[in-house]
Amino acid sequence: MHVVRSREQARRARAGLGSVGFVPTMGFLHDGHLSLVEVAGRGHDAVAVSIFVNPTQFGPGEDFAAYPRDLDRDLAVLESAGVDLVWVPDVADIYPRGAATRVTVDGPIASVLEGASRPGHFDGVATVVTILLGVLAPTGLVLGAKDAQQVTVLRSVVRDLGLDVELIVGPTWREPDGLAMSSRNIYLTEPERAAAPVLRRALAEAEARYAAGLRDAALMRSVVRELVRAEPLAELDYVSVADPDTLAELEWIDDTTQLVDPERKGRGAALVSLAARFGRARLLDNVTLGA
Amino acid sequence: MHVVRSREQARRARAGLGSVGFVPTMGFLHDGHLSLVEVAGRGHDAVAVSIFVNPTQFGPGEDFAAYPRDLDRDLAVLESAGVDLVWVPDVADIYPRGAATRVTVDGPIASVLEGASRPGHFDGVATVVTILLGVLAPTGLVLGAKDAQQVTVLRSVVRDLGLDVELIVGPTWREPDGLAMSSRNIYLTEPERAAAPVLRRALAEAEARYAAGLRDAALMRSVVRELVRAEPLAELDYVSVADPDTLAELEWIDDTTQLVDPERKGRGAALVSLAARFGRARLLDNVTLGA
Repeated sequence: MHVVRSREQARRARAGLGSVGFVPTMGFLHDGHLSLVEVAGRGHDAVAVSIFVNPTQFGPGEDFAAYPRDLDRDLAVLESAGVDLVWVPDVADIYPRGAATRVTVDGPIASVLEGASRPGHFDGVATVVTILLGVLAPTGLVLGAKDAQQVTVLRSVVRDLGLDVELIVGPTWREPDGLAMSSRNIYLTEPERAAAPVLRRALAEAEARYAAGLRDAALMRSVVRELVRAEPLAELDYVSVADPDTLAELEWIDDTTQLVDPERKGRGAALVSLAARFGRARLLDNVTLGA
Repeated sequence: MHVVRSREQARRARAGLGSVGFVPTMGFLHDGHLSLVEVAGRGHDAVAVSIFVNPTQFGPGEDFAAYPRDLDRDLAVLESAGVDLVWVPDVADIYPRGAATRVTVDGPIASVLEGASRPGHFDGVATVVTILLGVLAPTGLVLGAKDAQQVTVLRSVVRDLGLDVELIVGPTWREPDGLAMSSRNIYLTEPERAAAPVLRRALAEAEARYAAGLRDAALMRSVVRELVRAEPLAELDYVSVADPDTLAELEWIDDTTQLVDPERKGRGAALVSLAARFGRARLLDNVTLGA
């Protein structure tokens, strides 16, 4: 396993690898990351992983400094997983002195939901991923479904800028009680950890209601909202029932959209997503209906 | 010569070409463009040219609609020049419905000089060139020295985003009386055309004064300014004597900078640039001192 730091080293190490599935991460890896590594290995000659806690995607007052880090453990885990290349850049490798170029995403897909709660977040994500893709030139970019809006935004960036990479989405990995795996789960106290699976339970209720025929999006939102609000340790930020591509809030969940537009195939009729704070931890989860 | 329109056609046509020198243009080609085509052919297997009048780099009230176009002539000229691939996208090929991603360049290099006179211009340039590079993946990007700030901005974009392309600068091509070739010269009336070489004469005076030892940048600016102002048909926008990399205005032209910083080698001690309006035409020119 090559572990590299500078852009030049990364580019050189990548050059010898054939087709590459690439998993960008902020480190402090869990089984969800490893499932993405496995996805990246399918159909590619090699797997590359980046570990970079990207300062530009954290807002003022967010947890950039506190974000958990454990590089030695991460490298051991990736080595066991058979990863070929790990890029661990310093901030100055990604943003050298004088760097002035930003990739920004206009319009609702980057300004609603996480974009509304975290202004500038997706510009930071779009910029760092464009740089990582520029340097590594991977064949596939593997993203986790848990960060659904990130997937939507980066799908737009890849398409808009004509980047020659296939975007691959890996499923959300969960603890046995349903909590979506996240590096930020480490912030949870014991009672918060016990309360957090309410997010998954609320989304499972949305799936059940959808299966039973519920299509009114406002009603769907209030079903999910009430379930989360019943948990006293959860401080709900938003519940969204939106178009998976535009992230526009829906009035009605239309199962036929994806049948009409072949580009939409498999992306479902609605993305139900939510964010809630449990003490220090801000947690996300989502489910796609009608996929 | 392949002439293609859509992104997919462009990507497919490029795939068979080996190493590619790429010249992005807005069409209405002149000998300056053809000299860049020649530069692009050196050391590359093939030459690609794009012809696209990019709406996002024109401000409100600028000459987007009036910008001269002659596609048939352009294609004939490029065919004679032995070009392998010409990409003539529609606006919707570059900016498909829903496209939301912009490449922006913060800081002085994009906000001074042309950026001050044309707000948003360099965001449009940075975005379209990033898209063209994303789709065509050329080996070399060939730019004309006449648009010196564009070169500086795009050098920054290529470096910041880690784009795997070599930036190559071709010299400014001139009419026999010294006027820099530009598609916008067609806007000049006969008296304006006769007056326009004052720009080159003023820059030649800067070169002569530099050769004679003048290093005071304020004095250099006023020498150039007074020469242009003596021409009644010229409406001067700016005269700049700036650091070639940062575009910060200099107080003193320091010949030794480039000797200290190897990255600066060949980029000179000062960029003397100016812009002036002659009737409908806004013309640029520049010279590098101490290169």
